[in-house]
This record gives sequence, C-alpha cells and structure tokens, in this order.
Amino acid sequence: MSATGRNDAAALAALLRDLADRRAIEDALIAYAHALDTRDYPRLRECLAADVRVRYGGSSWLEGVEPVAQFCARALDSLDASQHRIGSVAVKLERSRAASVSYLCAEHLKDGRRFTVGGRYVDQWTRTLAGWRIAQRELVILWTDGDPRVLAGPERP
Amino acid sequence: MSATGRNDAAALAALLRDLADRRAIEDALIAYAHALDTRDYPRLRECLAADVRVRYGGSSWLEGVEPVAQFCARALDSLDASQHRIGSVAVKLERSRAASVSYLCAEHLKDGRRFTVGGRYVDQWTRTLAGWRIAQRELVILWTDGDPRVLAGPERP
Amino acid sequence: MSATGRNDAAALAALLRDLADRRAIEDALIAYAHALDTRDYPRLRECLAADVRVRYGGSSWLEGVEPVAQFCARALDSLDASQHRIGSVAVKLERSRAASVSYLCAEHLKDGRRFTVGGRYVDQWTRTLAGWRIAQRELVILWTDGDPRVLAGPERP
Repeated sequence: MSATGRNDAAALAALLRDLADRRAIEDALIAYAHALDTRDYPRLRECLAADVRVRYGGSSWLEGVEPVAQFCARALDSLDASQHRIGSVAVKLERSRAASVSYLCAEHLKDGRRFTVGGRYVDQWTRTLAGWRIAQRELVILWTDGDPRVLAGPERP
Repeated sequence: MSATGRNDAAALAALLRDLADRRAIEDALIAYAHALDTRDYPRLRECLAADVRVRYGGSSWLEGVEPVAQFCARALDSLDASQHRIGSVAVKLERSRAASVSYLCAEHLKDGRRFTVGGRYVDQWTRTLAGWRIAQRELVILWTDGDPRVLAGPERP
Repeated sequence: MSATGRNDAAALAALLRDLADRRAIEDALIAYAHALDTRDYPRLRECLAADVRVRYGGSSWLEGVEPVAQFCARALDSLDASQHRIGSVAVKLERSRAASVSYLCAEHLKDGRRFTVGGRYVDQWTRTLAGWRIAQRELVILWTDGDPRVLAGPERP
C-alpha cells in the first residue's frame, strides 16, 4: 500500500470512528428514553456514568446512579404511560468526552389526562470500556402543556 | 498489508456495514411515513416484504402488501393532510433479519379539525436483494388527542 | 492488496462518504434549528449558501443570507422561547448537490401562550469548501395549533 493509500485509509478510519461514536451517543439517548417509557430501570442505569449528575428543570442536582433512577421511578411509576420523544441531536466529540444537545417532547398519561413537557437535554458524556455514558444531564424545560397534576407524585399536593 | 492491518480493516468494514444497515432501516421507516403523507402507495409497497403482517392499535392482523396498502389508503385518502413524524429509532441487527422500535406522533387533518396519535412501532425486518423490508409491524398506541372522527372513514359512524 | 480487495475498499470508502455526507446534511438541519431557538444568527448564516432562496408557507421568496436571517430575527426575537423540532429526514445526494425533505414541529411561546406549526422543509443543498449549505428552502405548512398572534410581529395587526 502506498503512503497516500495509507493516509487515505487512516482518514477514512477516523471518519468512520467519528460517525460510529456519534451514532452510539444518539443510540444511548434513545435507549434512555425507551427505558423511561418501559420502566426498565436496569437499562436506564446502564446509560449513566457512576458519578453522574442530573438536574431536571432547575431542581437541585441529583448525584449518582441510584438517586437518578429512583427519581425517575418516583415520577413515572404512577403513570399509565409515557412517551419521551428525542430528536434534533447535536453531538460534539473530544477524545473520550463528548457533549450533546437534544430536544425532548415528553408525554405523561394518567387517568385520561395528559401533561406534555418540551425541553432541551444538555448532556456531558464519558467513554467507558462498556461504551458512552451520561456524566452530566441538565433538562432545560422550554414549555409545558396540559394538566401538571399528572406528574405530581403521591407526596406532592 | 500485515495481519493486524487486515484485522483492523475487517473490523472497520464490519462497523461500516452495521452503520449502513441501521441507517438503511431508519431510511425505510422515514420513506414509509413520507409515503403515507404524500399518498404515494407504490412507494409504500416498496417498504413491505411480500408476506408482511401489520397490526394497528390492537386491531386484527393485516396479511400481505395489498391489504396493508388498501387499509392505509382507506384511512388517509379522505383527509386534507397528515404528518407521520418518526423518531427515537432503536435497531437490532442479526444477519439478514432486524428488529426496530420507533416512536410515532401522527397528525391527521380534516376540515380544520385535528386528531393526533402517539405510539410505538414495533417492527421486524427482512433483508432482500432490493434492501430492507418490513416483515411485521405492530403499532402500539400510547395516547391520542383531538377529534377521533377525523380518522373515521366514510363507512364508519 | 489484490484487485478484489481494492474494489472492496473503494466500495466501502464510497459507502462511508455517502453516510458521512447524509449525516452532515442532517447535522446542518439540526444546527439551523438550534440556531433559531438560541437566536444564534451568526450560526444560522453559516448554514446558508450565499445565494440562498427561502420561502415560508407560501409567502414570497427571500433571496440572500441577510434577508433570511433578518426575517427569522423579526419573527423570533419577540418570543419568550421557541423549539424547532426536526426529524424524519430523507436525503438524496448527487455529487456536490443534494435534496432533502424533513419534518418540522415548531413551538413558539410568548406570555404563556403557544403557537405550533407543523410542516415539511423541502430543501436543496450545495457542497462548499466549508461544508453543505442550504441553497433553497421551502417550508410547506401542514397544520397549526394554538394562538397565531404569538408569531405576529409588532408591525402586524
């Protein structure tokens, strides 16, 4: 193989790894959303780094995998159904770190009532031996619609 | 080329084919949705395997390309417009078969009224010489909004 | 490397470049939408070809980067927030040109009121030394919901 051919091959391999990494991060965003909607908390935990920090809509930071999983379970387990639609994903890679911004439109259903949350996930990622994990997640809520009592847990008024 | 180089090249080729197959399945999901909304039933048929089985929202199974295309035409042809937004696509590949789960938010418009259906497409795929085709599709409806009479065909009350 | 190996490698390289180009166009669609929602007009301009033509919902054509950016600024700057969700992207490549169809669901928020626009972006792209740029954009509006006065600028009744 000529030097030119080797350089081309190296550039193509780098391009392929970039595409594959960005696809893997988008896959993890989607896996997280599907896990929420199927109440698959083991799968949810697999999307999170051990030292993950998460903040939803200006609340205080949750620290660690269990607090995040428990927060999600408390919010979702009393619903009849939910649908977390994720899209418009932008990813920036930097070696074993990444940042993404994605759009969320989340439906929450209970007793025939619906509450919709539109927002922006601003995420930091870390690459582990088992794949990309969310290291930090902030949900910026842009708008809501419907009946907010749908999301109120039993402990809330 | 060294044995290591050959192994690397083989791994990269496999990674590329995986990305391309998953992108092809996502493309077919989108082509199907665009075909519904432009009433392009020839294009819709191209997305389906000859022995396709489809079930919408717990109704009975439709078997074969023509029954599926005719069902779609009956549901959509009387509308003023529709928009089948597809997203959050998760694909699992296994040789010449694949499975996907994707989210649907479908708008149906008629006479200034709107009916929205949110759901989950659970699909099985088969690879043919002409590309990936839907072998089985189930639409699990998660929520609806608006006026359901928009979708009622002329034969329905 | 054998002739067969070279042919395989060339086919894989072509497949990779196709995937990367289509991903780059989807990235630009998303960057444009995020730029609208963060009022980042320098970033918006970077998505547009110098001789871009844009038409929103049957209005007259805007010609050139500045008229498009100014139109967007006039429409959006008075809002409290917006969310342009892009998805269901279909891309056709042809050398240094491309065409795409994508779905839009755009929320516009002001003073607690919301106006939603659902539509189809029909875009033509040109490849420049700096990447893919929108050469022509047409937004076909399929449906709206909510209070249209949210989008009315100060100069409109």
